[in-house]
Amino acid sequence: MFDLKEHSHTRLNILTGDWILVSPHRMKRPWQGQVEDLSKDNRPIYDSKCYLCPGNKRSDGSVNPEYNDSYVFTNDFSALLIDTPKGGVDEERLLVASSESGICKVICFSPCHDLTLPQMGIDAIEKVIKVWQTEFTEISLNSSIKYIQIFENKGEIMGCSNPHPHGQIWSSSSVPLEVSKETFQQKKYFEKYGKSLLLSYIELEIKKQERIVLENEHFVALVPFWAVWPYETMIVSKRHVPDITQFTPGERKSFAIILKQLTSKYDNLFEMSFPYSAGMHQRPVNDGEHPEWHWHMHFYPPLLRSATVKKFMVGYEMLANPQRDITAENAAEKLKSLSDVHYSEQKI
Amino acid sequence: MFDLKEHSHTRLNILTGDWILVSPHRMKRPWQGQVEDLSKDNRPIYDSKCYLCPGNKRSDGSVNPEYNDSYVFTNDFSALLIDTPKGGVDEERLLVASSESGICKVICFSPCHDLTLPQMGIDAIEKVIKVWQTEFTEISLNSSIKYIQIFENKGEIMGCSNPHPHGQIWSSSSVPLEVSKETFQQKKYFEKYGKSLLLSYIELEIKKQERIVLENEHFVALVPFWAVWPYETMIVSKRHVPDITQFTPGERKSFAIILKQLTSKYDNLFEMSFPYSAGMHQRPVNDGEHPEWHWHMHFYPPLLRSATVKKFMVGYEMLANPQRDITAENAAEKLKSLSDVHYSEQKI
Ligand SMILES: O=P(O)(O)O[C@H]1O[C@H](CO)[C@@H](O)[C@H](O)[C@H]1O
Ligand SMILES: O=P(O)(O)O[C@H]1O[C@H](CO)[C@@H](O)[C@H](O)[C@H]1O
Repeated sequence: MFDLKEHSHTRLNILTGDWILVSPHRMKRPWQGQVEDLSKDNRPIYDSKCYLCPGNKRSDGSVNPEYNDSYVFTNDFSALLIDTPKGGVDEERLLVASSESGICKVICFSPCHDLTLPQMGIDAIEKVIKVWQTEFTEISLNSSIKYIQIFENKGEIMGCSNPHPHGQIWSSSSVPLEVSKETFQQKKYFEKYGKSLLLSYIELEIKKQERIVLENEHFVALVPFWAVWPYETMIVSKRHVPDITQFTPGERKSFAIILKQLTSKYDNLFEMSFPYSAGMHQRPVNDGEHPEWHWHMHFYPPLLRSATVKKFMVGYEMLANPQRDITAENAAEKLKSLSDVHYSEQKI
Repeated sequence: MFDLKEHSHTRLNILTGDWILVSPHRMKRPWQGQVEDLSKDNRPIYDSKCYLCPGNKRSDGSVNPEYNDSYVFTNDFSALLIDTPKGGVDEERLLVASSESGICKVICFSPCHDLTLPQMGIDAIEKVIKVWQTEFTEISLNSSIKYIQIFENKGEIMGCSNPHPHGQIWSSSSVPLEVSKETFQQKKYFEKYGKSLLLSYIELEIKKQERIVLENEHFVALVPFWAVWPYETMIVSKRHVPDITQFTPGERKSFAIILKQLTSKYDNLFEMSFPYSAGMHQRPVNDGEHPEWHWHMHFYPPLLRSATVKKFMVGYEMLANPQRDITAENAAEKLKSLSDVHYSEQKI
């Protein structure tokens, strides 16, 4: 008899429409390949060589203010620039390109060089969320912007080149690939059932409890059924809101709490600062109504077995299909079992 | 005026229908983040602890024969197994899964532990190609198999856990995601023009020469217009053949030559054994006629600036859109300028 816990299968990602491959029996595979360096994480509260610390000089010559909470500035090496000339290329529909403009910003989460989100207080995290809200509103005033991607790369293994707690916002003049896919799937469902796809989904997950990691009045954190990264999770608002600006003060606080708890669980998993790329998906802007859109936040962490052994998304994954060994249910059980208090705060 | 060489833009991948983001002005970005270990590459010709060397014991207890050329066996930790029971899950189209069976094989390219493809002779590479042909034919005799993915992960950074020269073949009972996308796009074109999409594409590229890296009687190697990895390339057959079994002996030899030349250029780029994931895309099997399919081989190498600094496909790339800094044209120019003779064979 076919059993999800034992047999290879594919699972449908309802947000993108893509399928992923799960090989549960493969969890026993030994590992003799590359292991990551465990970089010691004894950072000072202020680092004179850090270009994100208050009062320090950045590469473009400007000087950071002596900020107290968060600090936002335009990325000195923006991948997207607002004044990009419009234009394109189209040779026989074989060579096709189109100009893309946008704005890339950096948000320092805290003036303290030695912190990460789970080590910050709820109040401080709430202030970061307020900045995300303000930025979303302000950036969308620029009518050439169609999508605002808020994200964080945490850890060297995730291409983060500075350990100072910070995230980024890249906004673009067209809707990016992943967001287009999620728009399409959510719209299809919304038009058919008059209800948010993710609302139906989390209702089912709350009933099942199998993949729920955390839950409070306004949010759930779960390992999605179709997760591809070993400890991938998603935070979903219980209310169907299209973007972060719609959060009430109560929701903002609940979001801060679940963010701190989830990232603390992550750090507790291998008792180290857990690397990930995380980011919110929300409605496109300056692009008509998007009643189908339901705000959510993805966490894509690369580690698999330990602090030093990651999952490689390589040959088969790049050429054919994303693949995982440990099941979503297994990962959820593990994350659920961990304390939601950061290990550094547990030790007396 | 909009200029591909200077301004941010998106490019269409005609094989998948997806768009990628290019930020040419961002090539000057300094790097202060993670650098890779340069593992010394002084391997012995035979390693008693290698489970791929001739005569050695594998983890399942079996012993490798004293093979002389290539050696193929079933992966001891296969992600797909042929006897997986059929079945699935479908709860309200929200939790959807489907059983997947298949066969995973390993191909040792050579008995010599210390070689890689570019260091092998043309004759030896031709023998590997023959094995790929035979395996394709034999695996497709199993009517439950719908697709045969031939690939190689090279280098620790690409999740390769054993430096002994080897590749893999994963075949599955359904057509994987990337292959489905390429089938769709090729079919659309073929039905409209009665001609292979890739044939039209390489004709245009040969005319332009801008992205061509190597060319011989039967194949071209080029940096595709929509490449996402810094030094990504693709080998395309000049003749429209759906799969590798169709190659004539002459084509097989030309393929061996271009494979050796391209991988030699790669190694010459940073004078080190250049890591990549590479693999062929070809027609699905046991799935009706696929006259649209045009055989090709992708190379996805992660390195960006040097032997130790790679491109990170992280936050924005995972959540929004694949992104690159160096342009396809720049990468092609660089690869073209390098010798196609491996640096180890140049030194006298
Ligand atoms: O070669 P291995 O050890 O089977 O495994 C390697 O290639 C597989 C297919 O791309 C990946 O799923 C693994 O993450 C990688 O480590
Ligand atoms: O944070 P940085 O230095 O701008 O850059 C990092 O995040 C970007 C967005 O995900 C990636 O394109 C880069 O490869 C990564 O190193």
